Amino acid sequence: MPKSCDTRFEQAAQALGFSFDGPIQIGGNYVPVVQNGNTLYVSGQIPRVGDRVVITGRAGDEVDLSQAQLAAKICAMRALALLQRTLGGLDKVQAVLKINVYVQSSQGFTQQSEVADGASEILYAVLGPVGAHARTSVGVYQLPKNATVELDLIASGHT
Amino acid sequence: MPKSCDTRFEQAAQALGFSFDGPIQIGGNYVPVVQNGNTLYVSGQIPRVGDRVVITGRAGDEVDLSQAQLAAKICAMRALALLQRTLGGLDKVQAVLKINVYVQSSQGFTQQSEVADGASEILYAVLGPVGAHARTSVGVYQLPKNATVELDLIASGHT
Amino acid sequence: MPKSCDTRFEQAAQALGFSFDGPIQIGGNYVPVVQNGNTLYVSGQIPRVGDRVVITGRAGDEVDLSQAQLAAKICAMRALALLQRTLGGLDKVQAVLKINVYVQSSQGFTQQSEVADGASEILYAVLGPVGAHARTSVGVYQLPKNATVELDLIASGHT
Repeated sequence: MPKSCDTRFEQAAQALGFSFDGPIQIGGNYVPVVQNGNTLYVSGQIPRVGDRVVITGRAGDEVDLSQAQLAAKICAMRALALLQRTLGGLDKVQAVLKINVYVQSSQGFTQQSEVADGASEILYAVLGPVGAHARTSVGVYQLPKNATVELDLIASGHT
Repeated sequence: MPKSCDTRFEQAAQALGFSFDGPIQIGGNYVPVVQNGNTLYVSGQIPRVGDRVVITGRAGDEVDLSQAQLAAKICAMRALALLQRTLGGLDKVQAVLKINVYVQSSQGFTQQSEVADGASEILYAVLGPVGAHARTSVGVYQLPKNATVELDLIASGHT
Repeated sequence: MPKSCDTRFEQAAQALGFSFDGPIQIGGNYVPVVQNGNTLYVSGQIPRVGDRVVITGRAGDEVDLSQAQLAAKICAMRALALLQRTLGGLDKVQAVLKINVYVQSSQGFTQQSEVADGASEILYAVLGPVGAHARTSVGVYQLPKNATVELDLIASGHT
């Protein structure tokens, strides 16, 4: 029997060495996910695990590529955890439509797409072909709480 | 009888001390709102009232948090004014699906989420529970006309 | 007989002096277009023609307004080429719902909206009234491969 997406999510969390079981905190006066018909809008996620933003600083001079990719992976895991809770399981995700990856970048750092590959890798690893998505990655000047990466996502799901 | 969303919009405008009755100018070769079925895409709004961008400069060193929040509120009011004109009244808004808040930030300024709370506050004050939304806030390097904040929005509405 | 959108696309390509016939390369582990019902999400496009990013550097001090506008035009042509291949022809585009234009900006450069007008102009020239769109343009700090502009797009189409 093939592994469910929820099983693969747990395995990805273990491989990263972080748990996404606790509350997924957000930093302001809004909601983590809005559902409209079968379309789900997930708010911008930073690499926060529990109370702590685990990867902060500017990609390029302060944070190297592999750490920035890890930040993108954690953001993607948080987005998946939110979809899982909203839909009742990740096997109910029908499609990931779009992700935006914002990378806090130092001057001259141009590997935003490589950073975003960390997030894309997680989506494929957990969701399989359903994880195929359109993507935009850009280099921003600052991010909330000095996070290295912020990611948001639009998905469709069986509800 | 409970107040209508349009009444609350007028009260919010008065509380801010700005009128949003005039034309909502945009700065280029596009349209302020596109409607597709019951989904509405609102173009990026800067804190322009009439002809003038009323809050400009970099949040952090040039513009303090409360002024940046005011900028976010004005952007949100403009987006609401556009929804009101498109739908024929704000009580026809079914849901705010997503807002993006771009904050022109100085180096080291990491309170983009707090700035965006200004916009979220307006959406709840005017629309009530319908104003609940997913949100992304990031710190950008520059904005059109040196605006401190730019906000765009996706909503659904009865048409 | 009126010209088809595909004919106008070819004429726009010739006027720009670039061909968009080859593969539209993307830089990472994702897909160029995701379709959900009749909504199409196009991934972020940089001004790449074939293997080469033809306009790089910071708008303002390194790249002047007209070159940045040309970069925006090339991004828009790439997005159109992707819609054309996905739908089987540009006359099947029903509406352009939203474009986001990210401009790599130097300090003090505030003409992001004027840069984005380059993209909007192409959309109207090729699609006619169907090309009317909501738009957000912001000034970012860095872009993948040092591109001057990145553009993404949501459209609806007959499928």
